Amino acid sequence: MRRDQRKSGRRRTGGSDSGAPDQPAWRQPHNPYRPQEVFSADHIEAIHTASLQVLQEIGVNFLLPEACELWRQAGATVEGEGPRVRFEAGLIESLLASLPARFTLHARNPEHHVEIGGDAVAFAVVSSAPNVSDLDRGRRPGNFADYCDLLRLAQALNVCHMIGGYPVEPIDLDPATRHLDAVAAMLRLTDKVVQGYALGHQRMADAIELVRIARRLDDQELDQQPSIYTVVNSNSPLQYDAFMLEGMMEMARRNQPVVVTPFTLAGAMAPVTLPGALVQQNAEALAGLAFTQLVRPGAPAVYGCFTSNVDMKSGAPAFGTPEYTIATIASGQLARRYGVPLRASNTTASNAPDAQSAYESQMSIWGSLLAGSNIVKHGLGWLEGGLCASFEKMVIDAEMLQMMCAFMQPPVVDSASLGLEAMREVGPGGHYFGAAHTLERYDSAFYQPLLSDWRNFETWSEDGAVDATQRAHRVWQALLAEYQEPQLDPAVAEELEAFVTRRKEEGGAAA
Amino acid sequence: MRRDQRKSGRRRTGGSDSGAPDQPAWRQPHNPYRPQEVFSADHIEAIHTASLQVLQEIGVNFLLPEACELWRQAGATVEGEGPRVRFEAGLIESLLASLPARFTLHARNPEHHVEIGGDAVAFAVVSSAPNVSDLDRGRRPGNFADYCDLLRLAQALNVCHMIGGYPVEPIDLDPATRHLDAVAAMLRLTDKVVQGYALGHQRMADAIELVRIARRLDDQELDQQPSIYTVVNSNSPLQYDAFMLEGMMEMARRNQPVVVTPFTLAGAMAPVTLPGALVQQNAEALAGLAFTQLVRPGAPAVYGCFTSNVDMKSGAPAFGTPEYTIATIASGQLARRYGVPLRASNTTASNAPDAQSAYESQMSIWGSLLAGSNIVKHGLGWLEGGLCASFEKMVIDAEMLQMMCAFMQPPVVDSASLGLEAMREVGPGGHYFGAAHTLERYDSAFYQPLLSDWRNFETWSEDGAVDATQRAHRVWQALLAEYQEPQLDPAVAEELEAFVTRRKEEGGAAA
Repeated sequence: MRRDQRKSGRRRTGGSDSGAPDQPAWRQPHNPYRPQEVFSADHIEAIHTASLQVLQEIGVNFLLPEACELWRQAGATVEGEGPRVRFEAGLIESLLASLPARFTLHARNPEHHVEIGGDAVAFAVVSSAPNVSDLDRGRRPGNFADYCDLLRLAQALNVCHMIGGYPVEPIDLDPATRHLDAVAAMLRLTDKVVQGYALGHQRMADAIELVRIARRLDDQELDQQPSIYTVVNSNSPLQYDAFMLEGMMEMARRNQPVVVTPFTLAGAMAPVTLPGALVQQNAEALAGLAFTQLVRPGAPAVYGCFTSNVDMKSGAPAFGTPEYTIATIASGQLARRYGVPLRASNTTASNAPDAQSAYESQMSIWGSLLAGSNIVKHGLGWLEGGLCASFEKMVIDAEMLQMMCAFMQPPVVDSASLGLEAMREVGPGGHYFGAAHTLERYDSAFYQPLLSDWRNFETWSEDGAVDATQRAHRVWQALLAEYQEPQLDPAVAEELEAFVTRRKEEGGAAA
Repeated sequence: MRRDQRKSGRRRTGGSDSGAPDQPAWRQPHNPYRPQEVFSADHIEAIHTASLQVLQEIGVNFLLPEACELWRQAGATVEGEGPRVRFEAGLIESLLASLPARFTLHARNPEHHVEIGGDAVAFAVVSSAPNVSDLDRGRRPGNFADYCDLLRLAQALNVCHMIGGYPVEPIDLDPATRHLDAVAAMLRLTDKVVQGYALGHQRMADAIELVRIARRLDDQELDQQPSIYTVVNSNSPLQYDAFMLEGMMEMARRNQPVVVTPFTLAGAMAPVTLPGALVQQNAEALAGLAFTQLVRPGAPAVYGCFTSNVDMKSGAPAFGTPEYTIATIASGQLARRYGVPLRASNTTASNAPDAQSAYESQMSIWGSLLAGSNIVKHGLGWLEGGLCASFEKMVIDAEMLQMMCAFMQPPVVDSASLGLEAMREVGPGGHYFGAAHTLERYDSAFYQPLLSDWRNFETWSEDGAVDATQRAHRVWQALLAEYQEPQLDPAVAEELEAFVTRRKEEGGAAA
C-alpha cells in the first residue's frame, strides 16, 4: 500500500484520508430490460418435461421422516432407502400453483424493505465463506471480528440491499450458540433484511424469533410480514437432508420465504451437459418449491439457480464462466415459466480481487440481470468460489453493482434532453463545456464512481499509480472508519440480548 | 513478476515456460441473442427526427471543396464558413437507401475473411494508441518495434478477427512515409483483414494499393471484393475535416468500407444529455453515411458509435460507464433502423490493466453485444481511454472475448444432452465424475480459459500467488515466443517491398 504517496484527496476517485467516497442513496432498482433467452420455448419445455420425468421415475431422497409423511399424505410414493420420494407430474404442478409471484421482505428499518419479484432487483452481500481476506492482513479463517466488520461494510454500502447469511463463518464462536450471537449481531450492526440458516429446526426458530423481536411484531404480524429469508441447497444430486428440511418447514409454516437453490455443478453433482444439469436443477428446485407449498400453501419461495461447471482437468469448480451465464439465463426462463421470483449470484473462482475476479463477476452479474433475477446473492465480497470473503472485493463489487443500477435507469427522452437548443447554441466546431444546457445539468448528469479512477496517466502516476484493488482497500477502510451503528430502540436491544442469554443458558442448538 | 516461483506448467492456467495456452481456433462468432433495447420505438424515432432536424437547420461543416461540390450537385444547401452544408430529410433518406446491409471483408488469408452485418461479429485489435506499455518495461511512446510485436500478438490470438489501424503509433517512423512501412508490416506480420487511415487522399490510396498487391487482385477484382476498411471520426460537433473526407472519397470510390464513427463525448463535443449526444451522433453518422453513397451508391459502410461522457468534475473522458453501455445499445437500435451494420468498441479509462480495466471493458463488451454490434473495435489491448496499448490488456481482453464467443454458442438441447440416462445411472446422492455420460464428453464439455486460474487457493499460493495481470504478462510473452509469420508468396512480398520503395522515393504522402 502506498497510502502516503497519495496527494490529492478527491472523494470520487477512491477514497482519501478525509473520507469515504460519495454513494447514491439506498434504492432498490427495477430492471427495465426484457429478459434474455438462451433456449427456445420448446427447449425450455423439454427441460421442464424431463425434470418432471426425473421426479416421477428417479425421485428425490427426503432425509426427514416428517417430510416423507407429508409427501405420503399428499399422494407421493415414498419407499426404500433415503427414503426415496417419487412424484406424479400433476402433484408437483398443483402444488406449484400456490406459489406467490412476489412478496415484500421486511427489514427492521422500513426504508430498507425489499420487494422480491416482478422487475425488482435486490443485491445481497456474500455469505457462508469459511475464510476472509484483505490486502493488509492476508487470508485467515473466519472469525467474529471480521464477521462484524463485513456486516458494517454491508450496512455502509448503499448498493447492498440485503444481508445474506454470515458473510464469513465466525468459527471462533461455539457452534451450539453461534447462530444466536451471529443473528443478534446482524440485527444490531445492520438494519437491512437478514437471512437465517436452515440448519435444523432449533437454529431456524431462534433466528426467526430474533427477527420478530427486532421488528417488534407479534407472531401473527410476523406471519403477515415476511421478515427473514433462508436459502436451502439441495444435497445434489436429488437429495434434501434432514437439517435443511427442518429449517424449510419452520420457515414455510411461519410464512417466511425459502430460496430453494440446487447446487448443480455440471460434471460433478450434475450431468456434464448444461441442459442435463438444468434438468436436474429444475427437478430439485421443483421438489423443494413444491414441498414449501405442501407445508403451507401460499408460503413465499424463490427459485434459486446455481448451475456452474467443474474444470474437467482438475475437478475444481469454475464460476463466472460462459456456461454459468448461459445456465443463469436459462434459469430465468424456467422461473418465469413457474411464475416465481428468481435468485442468482455474483460469482468468481479467482483467488485474488484482481482482473479475473472482476470479469468473472461481470459475467455473473450480467447473466443475473439478463435472466431477470430478483435476488443477486453474494453480490458483494465473494472470492475463491465462495471459500473466501474479501474486503477489497466488497468495494469492487459495489462499484460494479452501482454501475448496473445506473444502467437500469436509462435517461428520459424529451425535448429538453434531445438537446436541439444546445446544438443550435454551440454549432459545428464548438464545444459544450460552457453551454447553458450543460451548466444546468453538469452536477448530476453522469454516474459518479465509487472506485474507478478516471484521471489521466500523468496525474495518476504522480499520485502513486494506485491500482483498483489498492484503492478498494482504502475505500473500505474509510467506510469502516465512518461507519455508524443504525439506531435500535434500547428496549429492543435489551430484549434481543435477553433472548440470546436465555437461549445460551438452555444450550442453544445443542439442547 | 515472480516467474521463477511458478512450479506447475499447466497450459490452461495462463502460460508456462514451455508454451502458450491453448486457444479455440479462429472462427467468427454469430450472435444468437435478440438485441436489447434501451429506448422505446417512439423515442428512437424522436432521436431520428431530431437528428434530421439538426441536419436541416444547423447543418454540418464539410471542410473539403470537392465534397461540398458533390453535396451542391445533389441539392444540399452549401453556404458560409465551413462551408456549412444543410440537408433536406428526403435527400439524406434517399441516399441512405443504397447502403448495403452486409458485406464481406476479405483478408489475404481466405480463412480470415470476415462477414460484416447480420448476426456476425468481428473483434478487432486496439488502434491508434500514442503510447504502449507492459509490466516489465512500463509505459513508453509508440514505436515500430512495439507496433510489430502488437501485430504479432494480434495474429497469434485467434479471437482477434481483424486488425484495426496501427495498434500503437510508430512515431519513430517518418510521418510522410510511415503509412507505407506500417501497412506493409501489417500485411507481412498478419494475414487478417486490415484497416488503413483516412489521412488524406494519398495515404489512403497507398494503403489500398498495398492491400490490392497483397491480395493479388487487379483493380476491378478489388472493386468487387472489399479488402480494407477505414474509420472516419467526424470532428464533433457537426464537422468533417478535409483529410478524412479525402480518405472517405478514395475508399467509397473503390467500394471499400468506411466506418463512420462520430466521437461524441457528452458534455464536451456533444450535449450533456445522452439523448442529445445520440441525436448529434446520429446526425453526424447519417451525414457521413449519406456522403459515402453520394460518392458511390451501394458502397459498403458501417454505422459507428462512440458516445460516452466526460467526468463533469475534471473534464476527463470516461469509458465503460453505464452511460456508455446505454448509448451503445441505443446506437444498435438506430443502426437497425437504417439497416446498416454497427461498430462499437471495448473501452476503459483505467490507467492499468487491473480490475477497473476489466469491469469497464466488460460494460463495453456487453453493451456492444447486446446492441447487436458487428464490429467491436479496440477489442483487445485498449487502456487509458485509448491513449495506451497494453500488452497485458491484450491477453485479459482475449480471455473476455473468448468467453463471449463461448456464450454466443449455447448448447444443443436434445435427448442426449438432457441427460436422463446419466441421472438414472448416478441416482440421488451419487456423483457424475465416473459416469459414462461424463466420460464421453469431458474433454470438450466446457470452456477452457486462456488466463483464468481456477486452482484452489493453496495450490495457487504455493505457486507464487500470481494475479491475473501478471499471468497475462506470461501469456503474451509465450505467444510472442511461439509466433510464426504467416505465409506470404515471395513474389507478393517482393512486389509490396518494391511499391514501398518506389513510393518512398517519391516522398510518400509529402510528395
